[in-house]
Amino acid sequence: MLPQMESLNRSLGTDIRLWPQDIRGSQAWASALAGAGVLSQQEGEALVEGLEAVAHRLSAGGFDDAPDEDVHTLVERLLGEEVGELAGKLHTGRSRNDQVATDFRLWGMEVTSAIDEALRELGSALVALAERGIDLIVPGHTHLQQAQPLRAAQWALSHLWPILRDRNRFQGASERAGEGLPLGSGALAGCPFPIDREWLRETLGFRSVSENSLDSVADRDWALEMAFAGALLGIHLSRLGEDLVLLSSQEFGVLRLPEGFCTGSSLMPQKRNPDVAELVRGKTGRLVGNLTGLLTLLKGLPSGYNRDLQEDKELLFDTADTLKLVLPPLTGALADAEFTLEGEGQDMDAGLLATDLADYLVRKGVPFRESHGLVGRVVRRAEDLGLSLSSLPLDAFREIHPSFEADVKEVFSFEASVEARAAPGGTARGAVEAQLASARELLTS
Amino acid sequence: MLPQMESLNRSLGTDIRLWPQDIRGSQAWASALAGAGVLSQQEGEALVEGLEAVAHRLSAGGFDDAPDEDVHTLVERLLGEEVGELAGKLHTGRSRNDQVATDFRLWGMEVTSAIDEALRELGSALVALAERGIDLIVPGHTHLQQAQPLRAAQWALSHLWPILRDRNRFQGASERAGEGLPLGSGALAGCPFPIDREWLRETLGFRSVSENSLDSVADRDWALEMAFAGALLGIHLSRLGEDLVLLSSQEFGVLRLPEGFCTGSSLMPQKRNPDVAELVRGKTGRLVGNLTGLLTLLKGLPSGYNRDLQEDKELLFDTADTLKLVLPPLTGALADAEFTLEGEGQDMDAGLLATDLADYLVRKGVPFRESHGLVGRVVRRAEDLGLSLSSLPLDAFREIHPSFEADVKEVFSFEASVEARAAPGGTARGAVEAQLASARELLTS
Amino acid sequence: MLPQMESLNRSLGTDIRLWPQDIRGSQAWASALAGAGVLSQQEGEALVEGLEAVAHRLSAGGFDDAPDEDVHTLVERLLGEEVGELAGKLHTGRSRNDQVATDFRLWGMEVTSAIDEALRELGSALVALAERGIDLIVPGHTHLQQAQPLRAAQWALSHLWPILRDRNRFQGASERAGEGLPLGSGALAGCPFPIDREWLRETLGFRSVSENSLDSVADRDWALEMAFAGALLGIHLSRLGEDLVLLSSQEFGVLRLPEGFCTGSSLMPQKRNPDVAELVRGKTGRLVGNLTGLLTLLKGLPSGYNRDLQEDKELLFDTADTLKLVLPPLTGALADAEFTLEGEGQDMDAGLLATDLADYLVRKGVPFRESHGLVGRVVRRAEDLGLSLSSLPLDAFREIHPSFEADVKEVFSFEASVEARAAPGGTARGAVEAQLASARELLTS
Amino acid sequence: MLPQMESLNRSLGTDIRLWPQDIRGSQAWASALAGAGVLSQQEGEALVEGLEAVAHRLSAGGFDDAPDEDVHTLVERLLGEEVGELAGKLHTGRSRNDQVATDFRLWGMEVTSAIDEALRELGSALVALAERGIDLIVPGHTHLQQAQPLRAAQWALSHLWPILRDRNRFQGASERAGEGLPLGSGALAGCPFPIDREWLRETLGFRSVSENSLDSVADRDWALEMAFAGALLGIHLSRLGEDLVLLSSQEFGVLRLPEGFCTGSSLMPQKRNPDVAELVRGKTGRLVGNLTGLLTLLKGLPSGYNRDLQEDKELLFDTADTLKLVLPPLTGALADAEFTLEGEGQDMDAGLLATDLADYLVRKGVPFRESHGLVGRVVRRAEDLGLSLSSLPLDAFREIHPSFEADVKEVFSFEASVEARAAPGGTARGAVEAQLASARELLTS
Repeated sequence: MLPQMESLNRSLGTDIRLWPQDIRGSQAWASALAGAGVLSQQEGEALVEGLEAVAHRLSAGGFDDAPDEDVHTLVERLLGEEVGELAGKLHTGRSRNDQVATDFRLWGMEVTSAIDEALRELGSALVALAERGIDLIVPGHTHLQQAQPLRAAQWALSHLWPILRDRNRFQGASERAGEGLPLGSGALAGCPFPIDREWLRETLGFRSVSENSLDSVADRDWALEMAFAGALLGIHLSRLGEDLVLLSSQEFGVLRLPEGFCTGSSLMPQKRNPDVAELVRGKTGRLVGNLTGLLTLLKGLPSGYNRDLQEDKELLFDTADTLKLVLPPLTGALADAEFTLEGEGQDMDAGLLATDLADYLVRKGVPFRESHGLVGRVVRRAEDLGLSLSSLPLDAFREIHPSFEADVKEVFSFEASVEARAAPGGTARGAVEAQLASARELLTS
Repeated sequence: MLPQMESLNRSLGTDIRLWPQDIRGSQAWASALAGAGVLSQQEGEALVEGLEAVAHRLSAGGFDDAPDEDVHTLVERLLGEEVGELAGKLHTGRSRNDQVATDFRLWGMEVTSAIDEALRELGSALVALAERGIDLIVPGHTHLQQAQPLRAAQWALSHLWPILRDRNRFQGASERAGEGLPLGSGALAGCPFPIDREWLRETLGFRSVSENSLDSVADRDWALEMAFAGALLGIHLSRLGEDLVLLSSQEFGVLRLPEGFCTGSSLMPQKRNPDVAELVRGKTGRLVGNLTGLLTLLKGLPSGYNRDLQEDKELLFDTADTLKLVLPPLTGALADAEFTLEGEGQDMDAGLLATDLADYLVRKGVPFRESHGLVGRVVRRAEDLGLSLSSLPLDAFREIHPSFEADVKEVFSFEASVEARAAPGGTARGAVEAQLASARELLTS
Repeated sequence: MLPQMESLNRSLGTDIRLWPQDIRGSQAWASALAGAGVLSQQEGEALVEGLEAVAHRLSAGGFDDAPDEDVHTLVERLLGEEVGELAGKLHTGRSRNDQVATDFRLWGMEVTSAIDEALRELGSALVALAERGIDLIVPGHTHLQQAQPLRAAQWALSHLWPILRDRNRFQGASERAGEGLPLGSGALAGCPFPIDREWLRETLGFRSVSENSLDSVADRDWALEMAFAGALLGIHLSRLGEDLVLLSSQEFGVLRLPEGFCTGSSLMPQKRNPDVAELVRGKTGRLVGNLTGLLTLLKGLPSGYNRDLQEDKELLFDTADTLKLVLPPLTGALADAEFTLEGEGQDMDAGLLATDLADYLVRKGVPFRESHGLVGRVVRRAEDLGLSLSSLPLDAFREIHPSFEADVKEVFSFEASVEARAAPGGTARGAVEAQLASARELLTS
Repeated sequence: MLPQMESLNRSLGTDIRLWPQDIRGSQAWASALAGAGVLSQQEGEALVEGLEAVAHRLSAGGFDDAPDEDVHTLVERLLGEEVGELAGKLHTGRSRNDQVATDFRLWGMEVTSAIDEALRELGSALVALAERGIDLIVPGHTHLQQAQPLRAAQWALSHLWPILRDRNRFQGASERAGEGLPLGSGALAGCPFPIDREWLRETLGFRSVSENSLDSVADRDWALEMAFAGALLGIHLSRLGEDLVLLSSQEFGVLRLPEGFCTGSSLMPQKRNPDVAELVRGKTGRLVGNLTGLLTLLKGLPSGYNRDLQEDKELLFDTADTLKLVLPPLTGALADAEFTLEGEGQDMDAGLLATDLADYLVRKGVPFRESHGLVGRVVRRAEDLGLSLSSLPLDAFREIHPSFEADVKEVFSFEASVEARAAPGGTARGAVEAQLASARELLTS
């Protein structure tokens, strides 16, 4: 093979990380061959032990630049160094196609636990942040306009639930990786030896054996699901990043990120830039790009194994690596983030209570649509008079509608507003505490 | 609002299809308001009946060009025509934000059944095609090179299993649509009236109530999952389309698509173009584009409802519409597709049996790696002599290795080759019939 | 053709808009056939006139639901109604493949002028906004942290230059549409009649004739370039939308969007939501999705015409339609947007002048890196003392470094700070006015 | 900074490759500072020389694992080791923001020449392949159905023209990189020292100076254009790869790829897999993914510099690296590819001449639409009689239409068919030779 082709052809730099899976799969295969009488019991055992020795050598590292084309040829060569010609019997009835598909799935089944753990820690940091923000009332926004008062805890927890959904998606992708063991599919047509695939399945921890050999060697659905889980998690992280950038701006002034996760400016000494939030938000690009890349890669390929599939691993590995890179610092930053507002929203704009004013009228029997319009008039009246909503005199209210009575002044309490929203999922203290309890339980599982 | 803004702002043309969901959600809300004592029982019932009358009018069609901004204002206006001022009470404690999120989810929970049915029919057509191809042995490919003989049924079924996985993905997305009822979340902070959200959940068929109001109004995870299920299905359809185009080419000559799904050429009268396969393959573009579009749309939005979210529906509706458009003709084409080869591969290249030759040596005790090399030498010898592998004299075999004996000639049977691959998932008749039985069962559920 | 296939096959609903291009291309082809002696002069003229009559009928509209498969068969059928059997001669030596590629390119050459005009108007609105903001000094941000003072005009113009680059990209895509006239390429192999392609090129306004018939019928590079120009414009619009949302928030309070482009809230009567900015930002999704869709569509197709290409038009039409939808309201909103801050930044944080303080030390001979560190100490000292930077006593400055002298107080002028940045491209009045002059000139071309 | 944040924050592993650009930009800046009187002439010269010494050290390699955060801090630290405290003056009036934007653009201006050279070599290989295929007539396809005879040269050249368009796109992106020098924009507001930006522009080889400092520090349009050029090139390579896979299949049997670019099978000794074509086709995924990643990254960012932009480089570097990886082996494979058919298509199906038959009737005065229908009947008649089109007796022709005369037999010449397509761009020898001449000229420029 010519040198310029070798660079393109070679995948060892990428797939070396699959050596533990390649060893496990090969050991299972050796035993299965012995079980089927294709090898003697003794040969089977010698291969398993030889592979163990190879694993020992590989675990010491330093093989990234080995001369072999990929991890499979590397393992086979090292096995030859351990057991001699017997190594040549391991590949009986097995193809590179079912072998690599099995290795990759084993990796997919395992990688999730690290991601899940990182997500659990991120979730715990959000819970702790919510606990620090349960007494604090801040402006809640829609359309980035101030809308209604919120407990800061409600905001923090709004970022938790997506993360919990993401955990489920990764868990699901991992389960799919374990559905349909490819080993025993041969190159495309199945295995010509009486291999016990059910035994292989159990040994390798799969949930089921693949049903069709031709489908099995090229099925990467689980990998796409995992890349999608990564992309959607990326979208959630971009929202969290966006919020952190906003809330730690001077204008919003709600949150301070810890110094160790910010940087100063090369030109402006007073700056405290929310780098962690921006870097995390920026990584969304490659997470989405990896998904698009995998979809593009697979589009229009004919059935069966095609060499294009070599590219699948690098893209998915990058998604996993990116997540392992971004989640810990984000968690660290949230763990020490501080709310910089205090109290129960005393300084907030009374306009945040306009909905409560409409609800007040509703309770007095005014249909909501009408009360909505009436409050609009109240808001404009206050603006015309240059007054805040809460300091508008009762007369002015009553000119607009007689249902306004002296108790209207009780509406102007941020605390009362949030406490009114006591239905499940709302921002009242009780509802938030129920959320927290539920979240804590989910995070221990 | 200025005319050029109105065009941008207006979504009725897109969301009119949500009227049944908007009616159902509103009826449930009216009852819940009555249940909570916010409305009288009588008011609640009047609203439910009024909405029923509105539904009756809407089901007659013709409202796409109504002057209203969106389906919600349309329904509210028509309700006013039915019940007068009382209509103004329906929106009490509800926001457009939780309302539209609920409508959209209800649609997502329902749309899947049509897609699932279309996928089931596609699956049945593939099963029937496999049944027609169980006796037929064709060249199987990897890297689009002829590799090993396959039953045509094995090829047909290789396209079935991805479709069954797609069914599961759509089912999953639909379940996620039903997890976390948004209704009762208000605009962002929750509902200030003692609404029974659990009752709403049960009435509307959701699996759970959302846990955080702020998350709930902006959570579109389920829609992304459905768009992803559509994109991955698109990838599978592109592979099926690619195979159909290949196999119905003159060069491959394995399959004939029925005339009603092909077109002639405007310039070349002899052509029979596999249009159905190409058009289906081409639609993969928009299915992937819709997913990318949704991811891009959501990237970097701050938390809570932002008006950008209006765009989510058009993209997901397009995915559903595209699938409903492409699946039936593809199913129709497969239902009447015919294999144009006959027999048991008599005319195929004996090179397809090279693996079997290596397996023959393995059975004689030669390690696979060595036998693989020996067969390579046999192949080259036959080439040098200008002979097919099967007509090479026994002497020539034995010159290469003494393990070749007279029975080597038995290797040269395509039937024997496929029957050897009898492990589960393989192309032997028994294994294929087991697959078929399993597939038929899954298609009835 | 079966009904379910007909729906998939039919493209008239999409390509009907190409009728003017189809007529023009066909008229040119008729003349070219006559010029080549394939038709008589009289036949050629009769076809041209007949096509004129068809154009007249089509311009009246109402053909979207015609029974024809696509615009080409519609035009051919109507032509038959005008000129009888002669219509059957028009397709001589021409294929649907070179015909549709020509029509689509003609559309691409023309559509740009509408987009360019809309971009020019958006640019003019930005220039006008800049003119209204030339005296206003506002906080400029990096990392969304307040960084240095800026003229509001500098901010407005920062959105203009990307728009001008977008104009160039659309212009470029349009030029590429006009490079390589496909007409005369036949289905794939060229035209067997002595057509004068150079005459066709000139008549149809192309810049060159395609060089290879097989490439020409499938080349959609120009369409991808236009879709890319649309996607990148979308990215720029998302940035502008993001800025408008931010600056019109209560927290930033820098800009007020006109009422006709905002909406109130269904639940919160006091809200003024920047809908125009959000809707524009949201449309980025489909613009990016259309590009991804086109790339996915083309990936892996073999050479020559494949029916998949039918999908190209709908995606690119959507990009053009989306731009025509979003640009006018965005322009309208900017035209009447008002800056809501006043004066020369009196109320801004003196921290914005920290860089100027460092520059002050540099001018006194302190190396920048050192002065950067010294100013950091000044900032912290002021914080410790609970003072703003500008009210820190001179002694405190001098304790940190003796180069601080009485004239340090002159640094604390926002006006002086912006005026210092007088190098080309900077925020000083003179530099901004030079920008404005240059922008105005580019917008008149 | 905490360790987990450091990993996220650090970009040296990626941006170390920008050191030559960082040195050049810094040398120019040092001179400009001296020119503006901010530094003395002597200081300026000392910095330039110090940077030269740093370059010398860096060119020896080994700095990838240096402790510095990024290439800029690395260069600054090494400069300090060379010139001491004076190094602290280099950053005067410059920000990391305009510095990195300048470095990245300088890289973009330079990287194109390597890509262009690789494309030129690929083009030359296609020209040479076309030269080897000028006498060979092969079936041309549309919809992958055999359509009309083609010179193999016409097919080879159909892949050349897209490559030439790609060269122009890269050239264009490179020019855009050189439009709008950022240096002198400061962090966002411009430079407070009287720097001669026009001199900087000329020194650094830019075409113009940026017009707006705030736009300039965040403008990555040129990088998106380059990523798009890479993605579209990827699409073209996927088409070429697809064709190579098809044509080297046993079924098509038109082309043989050289052994050094193929691999055998681990299981099937007879296989010759077109790995080079598949690997190249597979790389399209990441090229498209990089573009999507960049678009996603930028979507919704507010104006000015945001740290998210750190991600831009890795994605674009990957596009450039991928192209440098795939183009040489593809070129190598084409350089030694051989057509495996011979002669003038003697064995091809006469159905390929059906269009010529219709053209024959047109020349006899039958309108094309009618002749198209008549030839359809001829084709079916031949099928019914089990005859090839060319062996159908004259009587059978004449029964269908009297315009068929004895000279109809002359139609059945593949050579005559291709020679008829002599209009520019067609497959006749003369037209192909004109193409070749034009291609050769473009490839020398």
